[in-house]
Amino acid sequence: MSNKTPFSPNISTIASAIQPFHVMKILAEAKILEASGKEVIHMEIGEPDFASLPCVHQAANEAAEQGLTHYTPTMGLPALREKLADFYGDFYQANVSQNNIMITPGSSTALQLVLTALLNPGDKVMLADPAYPCNRQFVNLLHGELLAIPVSHETQYQLNLDLLKANWQAGIKVVMVASPANPTGTIIEQNELLAMAEFLAEQNAYFIVDEIYQGLVYERPAESILGNVNLPENVIVINSFSKFFGMTGWRLGWCVLPEHLISVMDRLGQNLFLAAPTPSQYGALRVLEQDALQALEARRAIFEQRRNALINAMQQASFTPKLIPQGAFYLYWDVSEYTDNSEQFCADLLQQTGVAITPGRDFGDYQAKQHVRLAYTTDIEKLTLAVQKISGFIHQNADFETVKSNLPGLVGFDIQGII
Amino acid sequence: MSNKTPFSPNISTIASAIQPFHVMKILAEAKILEASGKEVIHMEIGEPDFASLPCVHQAANEAAEQGLTHYTPTMGLPALREKLADFYGDFYQANVSQNNIMITPGSSTALQLVLTALLNPGDKVMLADPAYPCNRQFVNLLHGELLAIPVSHETQYQLNLDLLKANWQAGIKVVMVASPANPTGTIIEQNELLAMAEFLAEQNAYFIVDEIYQGLVYERPAESILGNVNLPENVIVINSFSKFFGMTGWRLGWCVLPEHLISVMDRLGQNLFLAAPTPSQYGALRVLEQDALQALEARRAIFEQRRNALINAMQQASFTPKLIPQGAFYLYWDVSEYTDNSEQFCADLLQQTGVAITPGRDFGDYQAKQHVRLAYTTDIEKLTLAVQKISGFIHQNADFETVKSNLPGLVGFDIQGII
Repeated sequence: MSNKTPFSPNISTIASAIQPFHVMKILAEAKILEASGKEVIHMEIGEPDFASLPCVHQAANEAAEQGLTHYTPTMGLPALREKLADFYGDFYQANVSQNNIMITPGSSTALQLVLTALLNPGDKVMLADPAYPCNRQFVNLLHGELLAIPVSHETQYQLNLDLLKANWQAGIKVVMVASPANPTGTIIEQNELLAMAEFLAEQNAYFIVDEIYQGLVYERPAESILGNVNLPENVIVINSFSKFFGMTGWRLGWCVLPEHLISVMDRLGQNLFLAAPTPSQYGALRVLEQDALQALEARRAIFEQRRNALINAMQQASFTPKLIPQGAFYLYWDVSEYTDNSEQFCADLLQQTGVAITPGRDFGDYQAKQHVRLAYTTDIEKLTLAVQKISGFIHQNADFETVKSNLPGLVGFDIQGII
Repeated sequence: MSNKTPFSPNISTIASAIQPFHVMKILAEAKILEASGKEVIHMEIGEPDFASLPCVHQAANEAAEQGLTHYTPTMGLPALREKLADFYGDFYQANVSQNNIMITPGSSTALQLVLTALLNPGDKVMLADPAYPCNRQFVNLLHGELLAIPVSHETQYQLNLDLLKANWQAGIKVVMVASPANPTGTIIEQNELLAMAEFLAEQNAYFIVDEIYQGLVYERPAESILGNVNLPENVIVINSFSKFFGMTGWRLGWCVLPEHLISVMDRLGQNLFLAAPTPSQYGALRVLEQDALQALEARRAIFEQRRNALINAMQQASFTPKLIPQGAFYLYWDVSEYTDNSEQFCADLLQQTGVAITPGRDFGDYQAKQHVRLAYTTDIEKLTLAVQKISGFIHQNADFETVKSNLPGLVGFDIQGII
């Protein structure tokens, strides 16, 4: 018998309410299937299948061999901040000073710090539904108030100036967008972003632009809101070495701050995380070199081929996604023809076919039960096979046999561009 | 002229109030001095001067060469959690399950997550003054209420059961201690820790025990509160690979959680940081091997020699620290004989002698102006020279010429043990 002093758990209200990623349940079930010998096609994972480039760990290792394993300054390795400033100049014709760049341990930390720097309890934060799930949690943890604006394929699942104006109300301190976005892969055009930034500055609200998938765009040049001249001082850009740069496990991101936020972000960083990982920062310094960027461009092209192959396979199977992703590596697919419960749909699909995809519920509430996210982070052969399996699954399940007529056609996608 | 839409900065109240580390000012001034050609002895830095062991970056690099650069699970690499559980068994006779161990990107994140999991706005957190400065900020950010209990050399600058009882009041949700502590290097004995844990469980309060400096102890065995059997379910242990393990720049820590906090911490981690750095986790796996631990023990012995040399030099100079640090690499020194403004004392000392130390203000309010922290994170020759310089500085400044008689003697220190 235990002689422990009894104790009643007493978790905070906010932490108790935090939702897990529902995709984790899919992942766990997929692992059980794999352990039983069944093959699983992983289209649920928001991570490139490529490992980081060899030059990354070589550079990290060389730095460590020279004894460079101590803390860096909280704002980041000066050489890396300088190199990123150059990167903005070279690739986006953006005039960014290294002083305004803060290196963070992943973009999650950047998002958390920025919202901490801005939000008082009760301040309202407007974002799109669907969107990256963690943003909602950051706002909840800071006792902010969420204004999740339902968006559909009609606005490319994005906020725009009209939606800002139509939904504007007192107390909105921050608007958050992502371009390209997770889970939809859609982009907000530069003129629209600038118009939104200016409207928000007039309202004295901040504009957080998540460019985490920057660089992973197809049939168009990569862009940054920072390429605009005369950007008002309310714009904060979040970015990451995880996606285009393929350095997920190295946990490194950055943000670009207006002048008045530098000092407060430095102080928050000193207290909340001290410094980003040093080996990762030396690795990132290397990944911004020309030869590495070329290797990453080749990987981008592979993602584009996969996207095209996925869309092509879906069309072959008479599926009609309403929108073609312009970037990232996701397709957000309206499956309302086949189910009114996309979570059950994903669970059944996995059990019956071994294809793992993510239910819409992870990204919000609006039409979440009608959507699923397909990640094209695996090779073309598997993607094609997966679509065939999904097709077979749908045809075998009688309750999905609904009439598929008069469906809206593809939007924003040049059909000739698909192999 | 700029055509920017005007914007008025609007930072959150809590972020505005966050203090920088005042030692940063000392560090910045030290760098200016160094740039002007003056030699600086750095005793302000809370970081081992040693780089991480070569086996750490070798192991990280080998893992990366095998393509192991993706995200790990949020709770951490299973092999590392298992190895840490073994470590607790081998070194502390502690029965810790790997399921209760969560790997975090530095112990800062562990502390932040744990407090997020526990605190509702208005919940009270009791801690010692002086203490590690970030803890106060974490509580402020969560809108908790701080109960900073003044502690002096009479209780080894630590909370104890008597102080808990004497200062108890309704609404205390958490008590935080560190053993060994920063900035004092003092330890809370095991029987005291257990008694505190049991008292707190009776009050239905949590007990966060920071063991970040665990292993860096002198003339006594390293211990963990987890070595106690029948520990109540209110105890949370925070630890780090930064100090004893010397992996500062790799940003890796962990916490040991009671069963009922595992799920909520996993969910918080999924949202707030995703996963700790993968290369760092492979490095940490290697640093827990026997040969690496032996190399770290040799480094511990060097810190012990430095401590002894520092104390010895201070006694030679007729300084009488009231307390000898039992662990970590800090001496918290009462300089009230020489100044009533330790911040000015540190600034003047640096300018006149090139010796950089940290003012008490970074660690709290109580007698902060009477204390400075000396870090023995540099070699013995420099430490000895620094004390001579401090002595010269004090004798040259007339206003410090006060009578030094009837001072309390050394506490808890075997004078014979000093070389």
